[in-house]
Amino acid sequence: MKVIKIGGKLIENQSTLNSVAKALAGLGDEPFVLVHGGGAMATALAGKLGVEQRMVEGRRITDAATLELAVMAYAGLANKRVVATLAALGKPACGLSGCDMGVVRSVRRPVGEIDWGFVGDVVEVRGDVIADLLDKGVSPVLSPITCSAEGELLNTNADSVAAAVAVAMADRVEIEAVMCLDKPGVLLDVEDPESVIPQIDKALYEELKNEGKIFSGMIPKLDNAFAMIASGVAAVRITDVAHLDGGTLIVK
Amino acid sequence: MKVIKIGGKLIENQSTLNSVAKALAGLGDEPFVLVHGGGAMATALAGKLGVEQRMVEGRRITDAATLELAVMAYAGLANKRVVATLAALGKPACGLSGCDMGVVRSVRRPVGEIDWGFVGDVVEVRGDVIADLLDKGVSPVLSPITCSAEGELLNTNADSVAAAVAVAMADRVEIEAVMCLDKPGVLLDVEDPESVIPQIDKALYEELKNEGKIFSGMIPKLDNAFAMIASGVAAVRITDVAHLDGGTLIVK
Repeated sequence: MKVIKIGGKLIENQSTLNSVAKALAGLGDEPFVLVHGGGAMATALAGKLGVEQRMVEGRRITDAATLELAVMAYAGLANKRVVATLAALGKPACGLSGCDMGVVRSVRRPVGEIDWGFVGDVVEVRGDVIADLLDKGVSPVLSPITCSAEGELLNTNADSVAAAVAVAMADRVEIEAVMCLDKPGVLLDVEDPESVIPQIDKALYEELKNEGKIFSGMIPKLDNAFAMIASGVAAVRITDVAHLDGGTLIVK
Repeated sequence: MKVIKIGGKLIENQSTLNSVAKALAGLGDEPFVLVHGGGAMATALAGKLGVEQRMVEGRRITDAATLELAVMAYAGLANKRVVATLAALGKPACGLSGCDMGVVRSVRRPVGEIDWGFVGDVVEVRGDVIADLLDKGVSPVLSPITCSAEGELLNTNADSVAAAVAVAMADRVEIEAVMCLDKPGVLLDVEDPESVIPQIDKALYEELKNEGKIFSGMIPKLDNAFAMIASGVAAVRITDVAHLDGGTLIVK
């Protein structure tokens, strides 16, 4: 089964969202769980509301005003648009945030060198809730708003939510995590979209990395992929949304 | 079983929301479905975004910009805050909008004398989806954002959603619809909160109405209550959130 993560850019407007939904509907009867971002919508909303955004290493520091707009953008507009668009294509879906049936519980990140504010780190995924929806033919669509045991909504990295969901579901069924980027896969030459490496195992990864052939931005994504595999996920695919069965397959 | 409707004012801030959640948690093991508004949040957001709001007879004309902010406010912030607050009190809940598992399907209201814009009228409630959650001990929490068969999100009157849910569930189980207002019930003297009429049947309603003893603002609410009862709902309660078993009980 696929656990698919798509970034916020892909659902920013109805036209790109329609392409995403068609690609997902193209999976036919193959079940999937979707985890989406929504950063582009949140940033646009923050701009309109005049709420200054501070990013550290591409991640959003989430003060109270930013949490409110993140909940509105991710759990509200982005999530419901995705679900409604899938439904119109005959793919029944259920939009969930972490608070819903306690599906993704998190803890607020402790203040260290950086105070991230209302940012959560995942501690538990209710695989039974996800499995139950899938058994009914319903695709769970998860926003990256999670919830602490104390009922605090927390802004959470969508890649981390997808990874935690993939690992939790791997106890039940063979999981392929599909991380959709705006590139068709891991490229040997970052300028050449035709240079997709079809498959990478740990040995090849070390070799390519030592030779300096992996684009630096891709290294954390590949490290995350191997961490998922070490935690029981069968394979991780790095691809774009047009090639849900293509791109680069990362295996043990 | 109770189908409870609460207005947007009650969930506008965390302090009033905590009172609502405590009242709901006070129902103990008694199952309930909650339908909430969010007009206060939507109006506040519209003000911040500079999106002019037009109301006709207290209802919101919903242009594209207003639909976006309504989805954000109702399906996002309001819905997830209610669910998270209930969860923290040990009441597992699942926030749903109409698109989720197709739980509330609507049609866009045809343009008549007024063009309401992206406003929906309910055509179908999936009682099986609601019953399934209740069977698992999960309380469904519905926002008034519904979805057409074409996947169009539509802004829908929360009273109408609550009524449609109550009628749909009445096929399965005895339903009491609880409409929470900021008054403790139907009052004989609108200035005296002690003058709650404990029970009204159709005969008493006609009598009181003919005598001019029903406050005009209450007449549509009572008409809606009798319409629900005519469609199979056992009883309708008009009360405030502090008295979920009190107020005025409307019966056949």
